[in-house]
Amino acid sequence: MISRSISQRARSSGGQPVSYLMHKALAHPELISLAAGFVDQQTLPVEAMREAVEAVLSNPFRARAALQYGVTPGYRPLREAIMANWLTVEGLPTDQLSEMVERVVLTAGSNQMLHLLADALFDPGDIVFCAAPTYFVYLGLLANLGVRGVGVASDEQGLIPEALDEAFRRVEHAGELHRVKAIYVVSYFDNPSAANLARERRPQIVELAQRWSHSGRIHVIEDAAYRSLRYDGPGLPSLASFDVDGRTVIHTQTFSKSFSPGLRVGWALLPPQLVTPVCDLKGNADFGSPHFNQHVLAEVLERRLLEPHVDLLRASYRTKRDSMLSALDEHLADVPGCHWARPDGGLYVWLHVPPMIETGPSGQLFDRAVAEGMLYVPGEYCFAAEGEPTPRNMIRLSFGVQPPDRIKQGIAALARAIRACGVGGCVDPDKSGTGTGCA
Amino acid sequence: MISRSISQRARSSGGQPVSYLMHKALAHPELISLAAGFVDQQTLPVEAMREAVEAVLSNPFRARAALQYGVTPGYRPLREAIMANWLTVEGLPTDQLSEMVERVVLTAGSNQMLHLLADALFDPGDIVFCAAPTYFVYLGLLANLGVRGVGVASDEQGLIPEALDEAFRRVEHAGELHRVKAIYVVSYFDNPSAANLARERRPQIVELAQRWSHSGRIHVIEDAAYRSLRYDGPGLPSLASFDVDGRTVIHTQTFSKSFSPGLRVGWALLPPQLVTPVCDLKGNADFGSPHFNQHVLAEVLERRLLEPHVDLLRASYRTKRDSMLSALDEHLADVPGCHWARPDGGLYVWLHVPPMIETGPSGQLFDRAVAEGMLYVPGEYCFAAEGEPTPRNMIRLSFGVQPPDRIKQGIAALARAIRACGVGGCVDPDKSGTGTGCA
Repeated sequence: MISRSISQRARSSGGQPVSYLMHKALAHPELISLAAGFVDQQTLPVEAMREAVEAVLSNPFRARAALQYGVTPGYRPLREAIMANWLTVEGLPTDQLSEMVERVVLTAGSNQMLHLLADALFDPGDIVFCAAPTYFVYLGLLANLGVRGVGVASDEQGLIPEALDEAFRRVEHAGELHRVKAIYVVSYFDNPSAANLARERRPQIVELAQRWSHSGRIHVIEDAAYRSLRYDGPGLPSLASFDVDGRTVIHTQTFSKSFSPGLRVGWALLPPQLVTPVCDLKGNADFGSPHFNQHVLAEVLERRLLEPHVDLLRASYRTKRDSMLSALDEHLADVPGCHWARPDGGLYVWLHVPPMIETGPSGQLFDRAVAEGMLYVPGEYCFAAEGEPTPRNMIRLSFGVQPPDRIKQGIAALARAIRACGVGGCVDPDKSGTGTGCA
Repeated sequence: MISRSISQRARSSGGQPVSYLMHKALAHPELISLAAGFVDQQTLPVEAMREAVEAVLSNPFRARAALQYGVTPGYRPLREAIMANWLTVEGLPTDQLSEMVERVVLTAGSNQMLHLLADALFDPGDIVFCAAPTYFVYLGLLANLGVRGVGVASDEQGLIPEALDEAFRRVEHAGELHRVKAIYVVSYFDNPSAANLARERRPQIVELAQRWSHSGRIHVIEDAAYRSLRYDGPGLPSLASFDVDGRTVIHTQTFSKSFSPGLRVGWALLPPQLVTPVCDLKGNADFGSPHFNQHVLAEVLERRLLEPHVDLLRASYRTKRDSMLSALDEHLADVPGCHWARPDGGLYVWLHVPPMIETGPSGQLFDRAVAEGMLYVPGEYCFAAEGEPTPRNMIRLSFGVQPPDRIKQGIAALARAIRACGVGGCVDPDKSGTGTGCA
């Protein structure tokens, strides 16, 4: 009876593929998880929170305002502080600040914004271009709404503009250009590939979206969740900074990575034409995100507590990244077919293993890695069902959660599992019983 | 171009009718608003918050856990405390507590739960029965999803079971029984009617939902948002307490009325078959509501800070209700056709004015009331488009926000406007220029 009493939307909204991994992790708490994309719990900003909360609550007038309902787009002083910071980071003039604040909407993490945008922009059957690979939670979100993610070739510099142009040409040829509603780009230290979209590609992607908007506007959804987690290299301007009239690019960010995911505060700079549709949907869903949390974060920004915290995060994650890279060097540099890029930021290393090894949950590696004591995200989760083909020999490794010694142990365990798959002349321990040690 | 670049869902998701009132209120800040259903800002729990927040943040281990992501259904100790309290209030045995905790899901206010349930249960064209009148935000939410709200007759004891049975008979006769997916009931101190659903009607409504579930389960969505705001009379058992196998009634509550709307914490006790669909939709939307806020509220419950706060709220709102009732007695008791019921709880008085007076925004009363200095919610907003006809001479008055003297001034202003409409032999001041004073 259940299937007749729930909606079509609910019937197609299965759990995310990652829930399989979460069950594995819960069932085997001793595993070293290099799968979860969580932030490092040890770095969460307890003292900054105490200071900011006390500033809000010690003034009864302010405190009561914070504990009341807010407006749907969110607490204006926080939106102002966000936009002022953003203009400074982009090196843009601040004379349009008050106008731009009207385009900022706060949500429960940037994930809620991605979901609201999907609801606001896409009908079932519509097409969204995204990098191959891309953020698997976003692919799940699209699939649950019946929206078609189409993968576009990317390399270590991110989404390839020529491949995007070619993808547009193909859908136009197939008579489906009117179905293309957006290009989704994780523009800084992509999840999972860690690619930092090259500077020269940024205006090109914006220009392609505009050029192909014949039969309806094609938006660029720029997911800048990892922007502040930069460990090396120069800062790059956002795609939004190249969108002169502001009508093409939706720029989303979150305080979940830079401050605390437990507060659930994300935001977007929206094209003006999307402010009302997104706020209407958000007002219907939850009357606006928690006003109290927005007051606290406004105080965090006002008191300049964010910058030193981000500096601390960068130092911590840089060390962890280096631990992961040195462990990979130590254990996998000599395995033919294993390679990875050094990420300049973010939380991930994208590992290629030899093409004969399938990394998926039913392949030969996954259970071996679990048996050796570690968990990873199979790379195949990160490819859209259409467009670029899905390689089966990729792995997403996260260095966000575990301390350096556990990262090293996890990589050592993964290397044992890879070697046990018989690469580099190794024998399969399940078949030979000779153990996992081999060169 | 905008209409071709946003989704069908966004095109049908207009703002709520109440946004017209909010614009009026913003444009005329001097108005005494008896329209807004907000809670009284003066009563918001600043000291309880300080104590609970400090308890969470003073322990670094606990603090970091609270600032991390939580699980989609919400922080388990809070769900346990909620369910333990609920079983005590209902007078039910606690031996099934741990099983029932699995059915509790926390959301961003109960409004997000109502929205998730609508997404989980209803397809466009489906039917939801609700009282006539009912919560207008819920009607807007249904309309935006293309779901048909159908009004069922209610009186001062709430939804009338015989009228509900008759409504079922009518849709069955029309061949649309399979379209009926839920009955929505505000079971305590209804918004807007203030009716407290009579005790004997509670099991009858549950039983009718079960009896008419031939062609698919019909859920009862019990919105118990105002349960704790009881000023007189005995507490009544919930509809959920009469649902023996727990598969029919969805029981929603919120801490927005009893503690703080700025924290956005609501919850539902779900039938077991809806836990996964609702959590899948919620996980897709926002990964779960703010973990930090859930830790703080758990500490509020653990430290028994909620009960004394609710006692304080009750005393404050009881005084305000009495102020409104005495002002109505003073100014409107002698106007033929004006009548109202004394609410035993909640935030509203439901006022009938003479049938010749239309209370809607384009009727003769609304602008006069604004000119006299007050704002109300036209009753017609609270009636579904189908089912019971919509009377035009009702008004929702809220005593939640304003202090007692402003409530009295607001009612006096409303009475002047009503009298100026020419009832009781009064002359219209716009036509005669003789002023508004008359018996």
